[in-house]
Amino acid sequence: MADKYELVIEMAKRRGFLWNSFELYGGTAGFFDYGPLGAMLKRRVENIWRDIFVINEGFYEIEVPTIGIEDIFIASGHVSGFSDPLTECQKCNEAFRADHLVQDVVTNPDIMSADELTEVIKKNNIKCPECGGKLGTVYEFNLMFNTSIGPGSKRKGYLRPETAQGMFVDFPRLLKFYRDHLPFGATQIGKAYRNEISPRQGVIRLREFTQAEAEIFIDPRDKTHPKFTEVAGIELNLFSHEAQEKGESQKMSIGNAVANGIIAHQFLGYCLARTYQFLIRVGVSSGKLRFRQHMKDEMAHYAADCWDAEIHSDRFGWVEIVGIADRTDYDLKSHSKQSGTELSVYVPYDTPKKIQRFAVKPDMGVLGPKWKGKAGKIAAALKALKAEELSGDHIELTIDGEKITIEKEAVTFETITEDVHGENIIPHVIEPSFGIDRITYSILEHSFFEEEAEVEDGEDDKKRLVLRLPPEVAPVQAAVLPLLTREELIGPANDIIKKLRAAGILVAFDDSGTIGRRYRRNDEIGTPYSITVDYRTLEDGTVTIRDRNSMKQVRTGMNDIANNIYDLIYRGKPFDKAGTIVK
Amino acid sequence: MADKYELVIEMAKRRGFLWNSFELYGGTAGFFDYGPLGAMLKRRVENIWRDIFVINEGFYEIEVPTIGIEDIFIASGHVSGFSDPLTECQKCNEAFRADHLVQDVVTNPDIMSADELTEVIKKNNIKCPECGGKLGTVYEFNLMFNTSIGPGSKRKGYLRPETAQGMFVDFPRLLKFYRDHLPFGATQIGKAYRNEISPRQGVIRLREFTQAEAEIFIDPRDKTHPKFTEVAGIELNLFSHEAQEKGESQKMSIGNAVANGIIAHQFLGYCLARTYQFLIRVGVSSGKLRFRQHMKDEMAHYAADCWDAEIHSDRFGWVEIVGIADRTDYDLKSHSKQSGTELSVYVPYDTPKKIQRFAVKPDMGVLGPKWKGKAGKIAAALKALKAEELSGDHIELTIDGEKITIEKEAVTFETITEDVHGENIIPHVIEPSFGIDRITYSILEHSFFEEEAEVEDGEDDKKRLVLRLPPEVAPVQAAVLPLLTREELIGPANDIIKKLRAAGILVAFDDSGTIGRRYRRNDEIGTPYSITVDYRTLEDGTVTIRDRNSMKQVRTGMNDIANNIYDLIYRGKPFDKAGTIVK
Repeated sequence: MADKYELVIEMAKRRGFLWNSFELYGGTAGFFDYGPLGAMLKRRVENIWRDIFVINEGFYEIEVPTIGIEDIFIASGHVSGFSDPLTECQKCNEAFRADHLVQDVVTNPDIMSADELTEVIKKNNIKCPECGGKLGTVYEFNLMFNTSIGPGSKRKGYLRPETAQGMFVDFPRLLKFYRDHLPFGATQIGKAYRNEISPRQGVIRLREFTQAEAEIFIDPRDKTHPKFTEVAGIELNLFSHEAQEKGESQKMSIGNAVANGIIAHQFLGYCLARTYQFLIRVGVSSGKLRFRQHMKDEMAHYAADCWDAEIHSDRFGWVEIVGIADRTDYDLKSHSKQSGTELSVYVPYDTPKKIQRFAVKPDMGVLGPKWKGKAGKIAAALKALKAEELSGDHIELTIDGEKITIEKEAVTFETITEDVHGENIIPHVIEPSFGIDRITYSILEHSFFEEEAEVEDGEDDKKRLVLRLPPEVAPVQAAVLPLLTREELIGPANDIIKKLRAAGILVAFDDSGTIGRRYRRNDEIGTPYSITVDYRTLEDGTVTIRDRNSMKQVRTGMNDIANNIYDLIYRGKPFDKAGTIVK
Repeated sequence: MADKYELVIEMAKRRGFLWNSFELYGGTAGFFDYGPLGAMLKRRVENIWRDIFVINEGFYEIEVPTIGIEDIFIASGHVSGFSDPLTECQKCNEAFRADHLVQDVVTNPDIMSADELTEVIKKNNIKCPECGGKLGTVYEFNLMFNTSIGPGSKRKGYLRPETAQGMFVDFPRLLKFYRDHLPFGATQIGKAYRNEISPRQGVIRLREFTQAEAEIFIDPRDKTHPKFTEVAGIELNLFSHEAQEKGESQKMSIGNAVANGIIAHQFLGYCLARTYQFLIRVGVSSGKLRFRQHMKDEMAHYAADCWDAEIHSDRFGWVEIVGIADRTDYDLKSHSKQSGTELSVYVPYDTPKKIQRFAVKPDMGVLGPKWKGKAGKIAAALKALKAEELSGDHIELTIDGEKITIEKEAVTFETITEDVHGENIIPHVIEPSFGIDRITYSILEHSFFEEEAEVEDGEDDKKRLVLRLPPEVAPVQAAVLPLLTREELIGPANDIIKKLRAAGILVAFDDSGTIGRRYRRNDEIGTPYSITVDYRTLEDGTVTIRDRNSMKQVRTGMNDIANNIYDLIYRGKPFDKAGTIVK
């Protein structure tokens, strides 16, 4: 029997959600096209993400090029460390990920070096899975697509492996935009690239994919969140590292998880909560969603805590779709070092701090008479000296290029108390990072149902394929169906289409086949509402709306149809309030 | 004095619309970042484009990878023909566009070959503009960024130079999606790339840019448009090739322009109309917009007609921002040839056509007795023959490997009349192609005003910088301003923010400086409405809304503030209906 991935992908290809890229030319692994319905679904997912993170959290979106220059990826570590171990068959030249080939014979292949992997392949006599040929020495293959900017090879360019670096590189500009005030965040939704060695997981492992990332810059001394109480009661399916050792995830409120130290701090907990709300809103099934904490040995050395949102897929098991990390000051420090620019924020104290410091006090009564016009400069130079420079009998100074020796008697020392009003700190970064393609696929898989359904007009097949998408993400939001292909019914149908379109609603017109068959056709692509124009429409100006999920119908006026559908889709109006239930 | 480009760019950088990319690392020509306000402006422009072309015209959006494989760009002609002539200085190694260097000494440098340009440079003793060094031989530099897909250089990849090819490559899938029915269209909004030799025009000439393109597949025998009457009355500033010869553009209705043969046909005229409506809606100034027809010698050889929408820019003069072309069947034919796949549509006739054809009629009375069991096969073979194969005295056939000679007497001939129900045709392509970055810049330039304005509370500078953006595209849609930074005013301000955000409205909070100064700060970024919370808010629950353009204020209730602002932005509610005018 076909597994669910096959069923979903078959439907997705046939109906225009997902197509293999470059199919006309035989296709290439690791690339997928979004067809008309897929692109619309994806766009709606992105817009809900924007609603939550940009509009409501206030993390403005930016857009930087997908091509980046080398400095950026030296700083980020991608030039040196973004690679997979590769081995090529010496007979058929096919390339493989060495860590995948040895995964049955060693336990931790992903932390092994290229040399160790070469050794394992040799010892275990592992051969080319394609042709049985001998495999070559393993080496690290950098996963960035590279190119050159301008003529010649003047300037190396890379297609960015993540959108995140854009926000780090723009940190100085963003800091000014937010008027030097922490916390602030910036987001990006855009393409990222990963030149996989040989991707074999369909839409789950793409060479070109879309990320939605937020980089939130916070004060490292205060990782609370002002709106934490709004989310503290939300229960998540948490798979902490302790739970992973026991092998079982646990339901727990975010408030408790933070209080018990399972989630490192409020700010991270808050991001988990918003992530959860986003995923549920776009149509991920809450029963197939968990938050898995990174184990200590899998977490980046600089990270303070890291959680992945994972969905359960019939074929692939648990799949990471979001990563939420406290990356501390790693990124800003790296770019600071690479660029030679300080990347920090001046944070004023609530009340100035008193600090005591050692100070030199020149005795002008001694210096003035002796050094006359130079005395001022000498005094200034003396004040700038540190304690250790004053330990000898004499003090050596250079004033206007001239060496001068000052007697100890010309200075006295004191400890002074000063007000300090603030300090420069390097913000920590909280990063929620979303894989939009995987999320879009998850939604398709989780909302895909094959079920027995009632027979409807002219459709006698009891089997029904239905995408139970949240109305807000359904690509086609309403179908308009004249009962018959007759001019007198097509007229009002077109009027309805015009009204819906004016309200920004995506409508499909369908007049081919029985009404029952047209309902089913729309069920399969998740159209939440089908509007049927019949002969009563001509009499009293009413139409029926059929609800995809319940297959119930209401009869309602066509004049207010646009508001009615809008409220059903976006304002949570219950279906039975949309008109009079048709028995 | 600074020109308008400088003024606009200065504001754009300072306020977070546009930043030089990779500034932290010194920047690279041809790349720009959209900052928080720029990205939001651009996004709103894209969404209005979608509203017009996707929702209302029904041209579904698709999304294909930005990386393409070589076959695609061989078919499209980009591998062989997408290049600029390049010359390098032999002293400082700087690269230049040869056609730009000679533009003062020859009249048509863009149609000259590399050899001809080399000759012109030599003859005119043109030197390196940077260092005065000798320039090298001119060669054609391909403008596609290239990369490789997978390890080694196994598969060449290019960053697409236009989004259009995606729709052509997906033609077979799209045709099925639209159930084999012409006309249909598909669109894409996404990145495209052009590895410019040395871009020097700021945001006007980018190496990475965003296109919005529609490819509309129509029946070549019928280029009328069913909705043409809706737009026929729209007057455009047309700069036809005849007008260009006279040197003056002319106002003309689209209906007249099509009727007079100035615009080739209705379908193209319709696209010009929708383009015009889009550009005006997003904020391009109609007085600085014209439609220029391509001259015969600048138009691609396969194109039937081509028009550019051009905007006038203070610094750059007339700049192309949209191209609208009838590309005939060129693209589908090219991909058909390269892929070896027929790309056509079966179009049924309204009524079947009668066609007459020559037919062979075997005489079974002769064949039967002579050939017995073979007679049936022989008769079938005879029917398949063409007229010219029957001209000799005998007819030679091969039946089951055996050569057989048939006497002429065994056949008679006839002309039969058949019904033909349709034919395969190659659709023509109408392509409106939009440069989103240039459009976004145009909007900034056309809505940027420096003006004398009335003094407002606490702001005594009479100069006001204001971006008169249409409210629908303004990045920040409402500013919420507590009169003073006091808890009792910040409370209601936060309530208002929450309400507006729940309605999807992007809000900024600002409590620093005088109210007058805060108004000005918002004028500069185009915020259409500023909501002020004052002490009367605490008494009667009202706030003031200030209108950016008129600087007038109304007082209105805060309970209904979200709907009120929403209607002002999206539903064209007049400002004086939003509350009681404050004198």
